[in-house]
Formats: sequence, structure tokens, C-alpha cells
Amino acid sequence: MQNRVTSLFGIQYPVVQAGMVWNSGWRLASASSNSGILGLIGAGSMYPNVLRSHIIKCKQNTKYPFGVNVPLLYPNIEEIMDVIVEEKVRIVFTSAGNPSAWTSWLQNNGITVVHVISSVKFAQKAEAAGVDAIVAEGFEAGGHNGYEETTTLTLIPIVSKSVSIPIIAAGGIATGNGMLAVMALGADGVQIGSRFVASEESSAHIAFKNAVLSSCEGDTKLILKELTPVRMLKNKFYESLVELYKSNPSKETLQSFLGTGRAKLGMFEGDLETGKLEIGQISALIDTLLPVSSIVKEIIDEYNFTAQSMRNKLLK
Amino acid sequence: MQNRVTSLFGIQYPVVQAGMVWNSGWRLASASSNSGILGLIGAGSMYPNVLRSHIIKCKQNTKYPFGVNVPLLYPNIEEIMDVIVEEKVRIVFTSAGNPSAWTSWLQNNGITVVHVISSVKFAQKAEAAGVDAIVAEGFEAGGHNGYEETTTLTLIPIVSKSVSIPIIAAGGIATGNGMLAVMALGADGVQIGSRFVASEESSAHIAFKNAVLSSCEGDTKLILKELTPVRMLKNKFYESLVELYKSNPSKETLQSFLGTGRAKLGMFEGDLETGKLEIGQISALIDTLLPVSSIVKEIIDEYNFTAQSMRNKLLK
Repeated sequence: MQNRVTSLFGIQYPVVQAGMVWNSGWRLASASSNSGILGLIGAGSMYPNVLRSHIIKCKQNTKYPFGVNVPLLYPNIEEIMDVIVEEKVRIVFTSAGNPSAWTSWLQNNGITVVHVISSVKFAQKAEAAGVDAIVAEGFEAGGHNGYEETTTLTLIPIVSKSVSIPIIAAGGIATGNGMLAVMALGADGVQIGSRFVASEESSAHIAFKNAVLSSCEGDTKLILKELTPVRMLKNKFYESLVELYKSNPSKETLQSFLGTGRAKLGMFEGDLETGKLEIGQISALIDTLLPVSSIVKEIIDEYNFTAQSMRNKLLK
Repeated sequence: MQNRVTSLFGIQYPVVQAGMVWNSGWRLASASSNSGILGLIGAGSMYPNVLRSHIIKCKQNTKYPFGVNVPLLYPNIEEIMDVIVEEKVRIVFTSAGNPSAWTSWLQNNGITVVHVISSVKFAQKAEAAGVDAIVAEGFEAGGHNGYEETTTLTLIPIVSKSVSIPIIAAGGIATGNGMLAVMALGADGVQIGSRFVASEESSAHIAFKNAVLSSCEGDTKLILKELTPVRMLKNKFYESLVELYKSNPSKETLQSFLGTGRAKLGMFEGDLETGKLEIGQISALIDTLLPVSSIVKEIIDEYNFTAQSMRNKLLK
């Protein structure tokens, strides 16, 4: 099947590997692109010069399209955007900010722009800003999230009715069946994050990968809604946040308690107690650490198997 | 298609109309059963003698199977169960309580028992209690909900791996595509609530039905997590709760503020300002008020159309 998402990116399958902080370096992105999906480098955890070296290595390791995910609230955003243009990246996913700020500039530099949204309102704003596609991400997704708490199952059909640009569904998708579910709801493709944390090529610390493999249903929670809502594994740091909340903390108190570097500490350095461990609810379904190529094959095979079996499940 | 859910209940389609307080009387239940799905009377808003009259009317108005939904925390629970057995109801859905309390007794009276859960842990407890099937209900569902905040898209595949009894998916499903999505994830059937609020046969006040039709994405929220979490439309009552939360209220303060009769006031009497308006996130997708038979036909037709079209969407 070729569709609007495979055409937009020039890829084989309408699947995007999410550009996640501390997980998505050149190894993960190039392995994904070499497996027929779109690999993304996650710029959110990289200084501009680090991002440049990851882009260069990614180009050396794949001949297929790849992109960069850029949180627009990034402090070095102008330098990051310059690196992206200088290194001739062709695809940029923007998130956590206003899509009207950079979309035209990137497109004028020949770059395809996709923006991540979590509500209908921001989907329409992104379309009005001229983005080429959106990622519609539900409440169950890991890491940064929206305020509306709309789940993927409800967000996708509602967004599908509200915009006409291609929709890439994200949040709660780790398998071929999950992919088929959101494609049936109107998505043109999927973005998959948590599943690729538990890949050999993710740059996450092995302790964090193992925490993902052993996590169960109910082990993640969306918290820090007063700052930017973020879904994380419930660890000691999470419990200390819950304690702090009992005192009705101000935003400043929360921000100060959070500090800086907690995501790196948890996901990259493997401190499972005091680090911030960003992951989606679907981590409960993930129990194998595999190379990216095997993960992609499993997803595509399961999708095709279930899609074919649907003809035997008609209602009469 | 016949499967474990159609066989268990003796129905045509593996679809259950949810037994919702103030919405699901004999008119809705019998219309649902007459449309090939399982109709449920919602006992949660009925005194025992009221429930008895609804069961009698339902039997007079359909020759097909129907059931009763019973929240186990109901104050008159023993009288309610006696009415159900005396009136020879064949199917009971239990919720909001411990399934081991009543399952054997009901089954010994020849009744099929289904229990509503919102987590893997309670799915396994329900299976251990011997229930015949479970409803697995995600975070996006309206009304009472669980503490884990697990969404339908993630709950269904995880629960599917954890129990072997039939699974009826609930939360976020109002269309044939939504039904197909959760069936692809491993559900054996679906329970649909919000869509049937906006039916001609629902006993809800027309003002509440119209509020459901006009609601948009982001208009519901799960709140009152310290008591029993409940998803409701954001109205004046909801906003006053949000204000109250700023003072870090105790459970007793919340309970006292909530008072009694708010659900009846909002959903049955149509007081949209001070009443409690329980509905799911998917209400944003619902924009027609139809007879139950038309709703069921739309769901089944869309399911079949999309199931057939999947053969043209294989990934190569």
C-alpha cells in the first residue's frame, strides 16, 4: 500500500519512529530508515553541534529518507534550525510550540514539515499554519502531552473530520494490531515511540530499556500538568512529586523541584530512582528487546495478518 | 459472524448497549435487543420497584435477550438482586464493586454474569471470581471510571494477554470503525454508551441529549478521583468543583459538595448548569439523534465496509 504518508516522505511503510529525547540518535534513526519506515533524530536532547554530528552519521548510515524532531521551545532553536538547513535535512517534525513560527521558513528551505498536536484545536491551527501533515498524539503517549487528555481512540476520528492534511496517529501504538486500529479510525500512518525505546539501536540506558520491558499496566502516569504534562514511569522521583503535590505547590516550586537533567539522568544514565523515565502506557505490552528491523517486521506482519483476517469477521 | 460474545448472550451482533444511569430504561433496552444487540437496563438509578416495572415492560417489548447492569455499591443491592431473580432476568452486568460477592449466587440462579473492569488486576480478579465475561473499560469512557487511567487502545491488548474469558471493550467506541479498531486489538465485542444517550429511546432529558450532540473534543474531564473517578461534561457544576479543588478539599468536603441527586438533576431533569452530566470523550464525534435501530445499522454497516476495505490496505 502506498498512501499520503508514504508519498509525503518517500518511504515504504506509513510508519514513523518517534524522535524521542535520549533515545533517538543516528543509530535508531538510520536503522529505522533502513527498515522501510521514517527514522527521526530527536533534537530535544542535543546541543546544536551534537545534532550536527548525528545528522552526518545518519546520512552515512542510510540512503533512505530520515528527519529530525525539534521541540520548538528548545532554547537554541535558531542554531538548531540552521544546522538542519545546512545539513540538508529534508523532513522536520516540530512539537511543543507554535507551528506558525517556523513552518514557512523550513518549507522555503525545501523541508517537509510535520507538527505534533494533541487536540482538534491545535490540529486546525497547524493546518492553518501550512504544515504538510500532523502527528495526532493521544493521552496514553509517553513524554510531553496535551492538556485535554483526549485518548488516541477518540482523537483520531475527531481530528480526521476536522482537517484534510495527512494524519499520523501516535500514543498507544506498539504493534501491527494497534496500527490497524488507528488506520481504521482514519489515520494515514502511525508514529511509534515506546516500542523503539526497547530496541537494540535506541541510545537509552539498558536499565531504562529493562524497566520498559518489565513495566505493567498502570505503571505510568501523566503528571506535572501545571508545567507541561508529561507521562512517566512511576518511580521514586514520581512518588516524591506526588508527595509534593499534597502541599499545593506553585509552578515555581514544581519547576524548582524538577530541576534540570532529570530525563538524561533517568533514560540515558539509567538512574531509575531519581531520574525522569518518559514512556507511554503501551510499555506494558512490550516485553522483547529487539533490533529495529525485527520490530518493524513484526509490526508489518501482524498488521497484514489481521487486515486479511478481517474479511472473515464480517457482521451479518 | 458468530463469536464468544454473540453465543454467550444469544444475540446477532457482538454489541452491548451500556446500562447507564438515567438513560437506560426499558425503552432503550428493548429497542437495543430488538436491533440485534444486547440491551441493558441500568439499575443504578432505580429503586427496586422501579427496576421491576422496567424489567416487566422490557419483557413485554422484546422477545430477544436483555440484561440489567447493577453497580454493586448500590444501597438496596439485596432487594435489587431479588427482583432480578424473581423476574427471571438471564444476564447481569455488575460494576463498581467486588465481583466475588454476587457472581456465584447469580450463576446458581441461572444468570450469566459479566463484570466491568478498568485494569488488568481487576480483570484477573473477575476471572478468578468466575464471571462469564468482562467489560474492559478505558479512561475515555463516561461516568464512573478506574484509577489507573489506562486508555481503551492500551487496555484491550494488555487485558487480552492476561485473561482467557471473553472481553467486551468499552470507552471511546461510538462507530463501526471504533468497533473494528478494538476487535482488531483482541476484543470479542463492544459496549457502547454515549452513542445511545443520543438515541430517541434513551430516557435522558432532551437538553442533555442536545448537550451531547453539541459537545466538542476536550469538553469532558475525569474528576472526583478521590471519591470514585467520574467523567463528565465541563459545565458550571464542573467548574465549581475545579474551584473547590484549589482549596485542597478533604474527601468529606468533596462528598458534601457533590451532594445527592446531581446525576438525576443533570441527565434526567435537564439542568445543564448544576447537574452532573456523565458522558464519554467520544461524545465529540456524535452529532445525530437517531432511533436505536438506525444507530445499530450505521455501526454494523460502517464496520463491514471498513473490514472489507482492509484487504486493499495491505502493506508491501
